[in-house]
Amino acid sequence: MHEFDAAMQLRPESPGRWSGAFHDGWTIGNAINGGVAMALGLTALGRHLAEDPAETNRHVDPVVLSAYFMTASLGGPCTVETETLRCGRRLSTGQISVWQPGTDGTPVERMRALASLGNHDTIDTARQASPPDLPPPDRCVPSDAAPPDFLSQSPFLDRLDLRLDPDTAGWAMGKPSMRGLMRGWLRLKDGREPDTTMLMWALDAFPPVAFDLGIYGWAPTLEFTGHIRRRPAPGWLRVVLSSDTTTGDLMEEDATIWDSAGNLVAQSRQLCSVRSQSRPARS
Amino acid sequence: MHEFDAAMQLRPESPGRWSGAFHDGWTIGNAINGGVAMALGLTALGRHLAEDPAETNRHVDPVVLSAYFMTASLGGPCTVETETLRCGRRLSTGQISVWQPGTDGTPVERMRALASLGNHDTIDTARQASPPDLPPPDRCVPSDAAPPDFLSQSPFLDRLDLRLDPDTAGWAMGKPSMRGLMRGWLRLKDGREPDTTMLMWALDAFPPVAFDLGIYGWAPTLEFTGHIRRRPAPGWLRVVLSSDTTTGDLMEEDATIWDSAGNLVAQSRQLCSVRSQSRPARS
Repeated sequence: MHEFDAAMQLRPESPGRWSGAFHDGWTIGNAINGGVAMALGLTALGRHLAEDPAETNRHVDPVVLSAYFMTASLGGPCTVETETLRCGRRLSTGQISVWQPGTDGTPVERMRALASLGNHDTIDTARQASPPDLPPPDRCVPSDAAPPDFLSQSPFLDRLDLRLDPDTAGWAMGKPSMRGLMRGWLRLKDGREPDTTMLMWALDAFPPVAFDLGIYGWAPTLEFTGHIRRRPAPGWLRVVLSSDTTTGDLMEEDATIWDSAGNLVAQSRQLCSVRSQSRPARS
Repeated sequence: MHEFDAAMQLRPESPGRWSGAFHDGWTIGNAINGGVAMALGLTALGRHLAEDPAETNRHVDPVVLSAYFMTASLGGPCTVETETLRCGRRLSTGQISVWQPGTDGTPVERMRALASLGNHDTIDTARQASPPDLPPPDRCVPSDAAPPDFLSQSPFLDRLDLRLDPDTAGWAMGKPSMRGLMRGWLRLKDGREPDTTMLMWALDAFPPVAFDLGIYGWAPTLEFTGHIRRRPAPGWLRVVLSSDTTTGDLMEEDATIWDSAGNLVAQSRQLCSVRSQSRPARS
């Protein structure tokens, strides 16, 4: 079984209640990567809907997800709660909640999300942005060129094959371009091909775009909304990250993904928290 | 009292439960404008948090909201349910649910949303996109130039003063530019100045950007996520709508708002449903 699929394993506990686990291998910094929590939540909601008698339209593809992160997920067991809100013709909508036991054993909510699933079987793309021109993967910068203290805290990076366009990889050598831009290739290292659930994870798999603005601290996600536009073709994904807006300690980060066939397959915007550089040091 | 504030009136029913009403004056097509439902929900959540003893940081400004629309809101009484999910230092997060009685009296959920509130008192904007160059409002196209059957179904348009840049108003004369672009000025007709809650409404107040792609049918919002970046200065808002992606019957619509001081104050992306033009007519 591929690593990603192993991380998506769930055992039904009772209707709308699933037990799973976050594996330490998906840790980045001091927390489990948020994309893993989102993909696990979507997997649970997909199974929940598949069992709902009101769901008659085989809505198997995540179409949109909005996740609010309240506390950091840690390696270990977790519980996912799922609820059907509405089964419609085009979309079915539900709610997801991920919990882990806190230090005193009391459940602590990690993430609350709303999501709609649909069916991307026969999607016809009428309009889309073109994929970026990138040097081939073997002429890009692999993620093990990242700053050593970033790498040592990030077993997560061992799960994926990430190649940055040298034009947007200056931050890894201490020379951020200050454009708020990152471009590159992405795939899972063990050969697991992308699907619509994996795409939601992939939208949050790159290093924070804040690095290209010279902000090297962690940039935890507060809110993330991702859209899946169609099923991806097998092979490398092309990812572009950008940020136009930083207000106070809050930064916007946008991601767009194209598949190997050149189709735009996923888009996201997230609100993350950054240590503002303009803030004076404490004396 | 200004019309917008009248629409935000709520009576507490019990903890986490509020009664309000949708006024027919905010109807567009056959439904209440989604922005009004979102602003009413945020108003309820703000009052809920203000009464929560765990909320000690005066988080009075909506920062981010993700709303999932399940059924069309209609003129008449509604119930808003609110729940605190987490009170944090920077943000407090809660859940909102808007209900109305269905035809048989059973409650029907109109909208489920997650939202975080913060405090935009002393926001310092480090990076932002520049506002668009627009002709002055008196040289733009007022919304009563819209197609007559659009106007007659839309008492909503009487509440606002909307002036489209002539360069992006061709659709109103049956000549859409096919760029998926709309730009213009916006304010409330009765002089009510913008604030952070009104901005969330304003992100969904323009005609659908689908009109500029020659798709003139209704484009109901399925999911909407809006970010409020800072408190707006009084006066006209500058709004830009765009769409890059249409897949199947689903369209992305992005909105950005600048205030009269030229600061980027709000951004949103929504997923809406359109009648695809490439679909063959039924025989």
